[in-house]
Amino acid sequence: MSFEEMWAALLPIGRDDATGGYDRFAWTPPELECRAWFLDEARRRDLEVEHDANGNMFAWWYPDGVPREGAVLTGSHLDSVPGGGAFDGPLGIVSAFAAVDLMRERGVTPRRPIGIGAFAEEEGARFGVACLGSRLLAGAIDPARARGLTDADGHTFAEVLHNAGIDPDGIGPDADLLRRVGCYVELHVEQGRALTEPVGVASAIVPHGRWRFAFAGEGNHAGTTGLPDRRDPMLPFAAMVIAAREAAERNGTVATVGKVRVVPGGVNAIASSVTGWLDARGPADDAVRRTVAEVDEAARVAARPHRVSVELAEESYSEVVDFDHGLRDRMVETLGGAPVLPTGAGHDAGILSARVPSAMLFVRNPTGVSHAPAESAEPADCLAGVDALAAVLNDLAQG
Amino acid sequence: MSFEEMWAALLPIGRDDATGGYDRFAWTPPELECRAWFLDEARRRDLEVEHDANGNMFAWWYPDGVPREGAVLTGSHLDSVPGGGAFDGPLGIVSAFAAVDLMRERGVTPRRPIGIGAFAEEEGARFGVACLGSRLLAGAIDPARARGLTDADGHTFAEVLHNAGIDPDGIGPDADLLRRVGCYVELHVEQGRALTEPVGVASAIVPHGRWRFAFAGEGNHAGTTGLPDRRDPMLPFAAMVIAAREAAERNGTVATVGKVRVVPGGVNAIASSVTGWLDARGPADDAVRRTVAEVDEAARVAARPHRVSVELAEESYSEVVDFDHGLRDRMVETLGGAPVLPTGAGHDAGILSARVPSAMLFVRNPTGVSHAPAESAEPADCLAGVDALAAVLNDLAQG
Repeated sequence: MSFEEMWAALLPIGRDDATGGYDRFAWTPPELECRAWFLDEARRRDLEVEHDANGNMFAWWYPDGVPREGAVLTGSHLDSVPGGGAFDGPLGIVSAFAAVDLMRERGVTPRRPIGIGAFAEEEGARFGVACLGSRLLAGAIDPARARGLTDADGHTFAEVLHNAGIDPDGIGPDADLLRRVGCYVELHVEQGRALTEPVGVASAIVPHGRWRFAFAGEGNHAGTTGLPDRRDPMLPFAAMVIAAREAAERNGTVATVGKVRVVPGGVNAIASSVTGWLDARGPADDAVRRTVAEVDEAARVAARPHRVSVELAEESYSEVVDFDHGLRDRMVETLGGAPVLPTGAGHDAGILSARVPSAMLFVRNPTGVSHAPAESAEPADCLAGVDALAAVLNDLAQG
Repeated sequence: MSFEEMWAALLPIGRDDATGGYDRFAWTPPELECRAWFLDEARRRDLEVEHDANGNMFAWWYPDGVPREGAVLTGSHLDSVPGGGAFDGPLGIVSAFAAVDLMRERGVTPRRPIGIGAFAEEEGARFGVACLGSRLLAGAIDPARARGLTDADGHTFAEVLHNAGIDPDGIGPDADLLRRVGCYVELHVEQGRALTEPVGVASAIVPHGRWRFAFAGEGNHAGTTGLPDRRDPMLPFAAMVIAAREAAERNGTVATVGKVRVVPGGVNAIASSVTGWLDARGPADDAVRRTVAEVDEAARVAARPHRVSVELAEESYSEVVDFDHGLRDRMVETLGGAPVLPTGAGHDAGILSARVPSAMLFVRNPTGVSHAPAESAEPADCLAGVDALAAVLNDLAQG
């Protein structure tokens, strides 16, 4: 199966034909179909499939058939955000299979094992914590907390794992697997317009996190409740949205409210509670922290006259990730020079970098759009990405 | 079945035991269970059941077994808003059955037929248009428009009617039924704190309507999209929420945003579109119209710098309803005096008043809360309501 054939096989899975967006949430039918595709592609290449205890999957190329330490791991994820694009995640996995094919066509026999990973729940779209699979593997989240995470229907992560045939009590850090990995190189579509050449190398992931603002007021009739009698949580929520933009402008960060839940959510009912999620990222920890603190303060000031309570919870936070300099410089050299750029997006490579030297390759995105149907990459750039990944894997696997 | 027994039978249907709120949406299982209850209570009393062409149900008491014009109709509705209270709707129907029992216990033989109506989709919680059943009956909505209304799952009203065994092509004004009705008297729980005696009589329904604001921007990645590149529709939506409160304060109206839909709705995705619903009501048409115009203007001003488009659609609007003065005065006299008060809530009585003399009785609400679990009425006040309704029906049915 060529790159194009693999791409075409994945393309219809989980796509809303009306919008062109993808809904591939962890362990839902479209994502399970993507997992089955992964297993087929691995078997087609005689790669050895490994399911770890955390819902992640690996396909290993052991040149002499013997597992060994020091493997060069590549890969990405199969899940999507709601209404996401086709490239975020799958491009890294399809490119990895294609790079293995290319190396074999060229008669390469690597000295180290090469692995292709598909990490679970990278987007956090179902359980609210991004990079959940790699976090569990790397010991970056408490397994008990992970088990208790719930999806929009109230199903816990533990239940969903159990139904997928995975023992929820077995999740958590996997030192044995990590010991076998010498380094991790993730290929990903670029998510802005910063990359003007077909392929680039990541310098860093900027600090980023998610915060949940819960506003609690009093549900009541929209027609019969006078303004002074209202405790409407929608009003401080709205102030929070506007404050987020203003705080981002002041602090040189980005801040976004893209998800809100209103209870009860009727046109003719004043809400009893509103929950809004804030995504904030920036060049440095203190700028991000200051952004969130300013939004929190503005939300509280706006809530007080309406007798609405505010609770702020940090759902996740990742400090700046500075990718391994040696690995990065070696990749740039292998590629005969390539632009080096930071990213505002979190990735499994950012989580794994705390445990193994990690790096990323980016493929140019002409729209600059990501997490939406317009996310794209030119076919020629995708093939340049495969070439670059094959060159990097080849170099690293000989070292 | 006494008032208390009927009340106890309805109480668990469609209730969320965690919140105490009710979800009884038209033609969903809980509402169908309420409809079955209505039919049982009608048969238990040898009332003649009539299903009209619009999904409304009637239970007729023909003292001599013969349908006749000039009937005195009472009743209300069985459906609820999301997470609604127990009283809004069912109180009027349970009280109607109890009033018939009381009249029969007293040996009353009315000269006019007495009917108990259960109107469909009064809250508009499923298809977005309040009083849909009575609007169709009275010719206050185009049947073709009604057929095309969709619920949150994309099912059309026509489909839902068809699945309920009702011919969607048969809906629309029903002159024959209306000709048989001499007047309509709806008993309802009061929805504010304005009524300080157990029972009151309505003077008017203030003007009220629902408007839909659709903000369209561009979906994108929350981390990698710089502030100047964003077309985030959440920002003008938030401005619209705040403008609604301010416009209501300026114009002496009430304005509420209690429902919002965000696409795609991911924490780490800038929304591509946000739809917010505005409910606005006030003492006079021009004050309500001015409120909506000011909110619209504020939304457009806020949307422009973010390159977000705004579309405003009026989903429904009801001008002031001044209930029939003769009927109202006669009821006050029958009750030996009773407070007369307006309401900010829409009702089927408001729709029917365009076709038949209509009136309302209110039962005191100690919390003043409505459309929420805390909505309530004291048992003694409910029984006073039954007494008052029996007295009014008795008087009108002899006339």
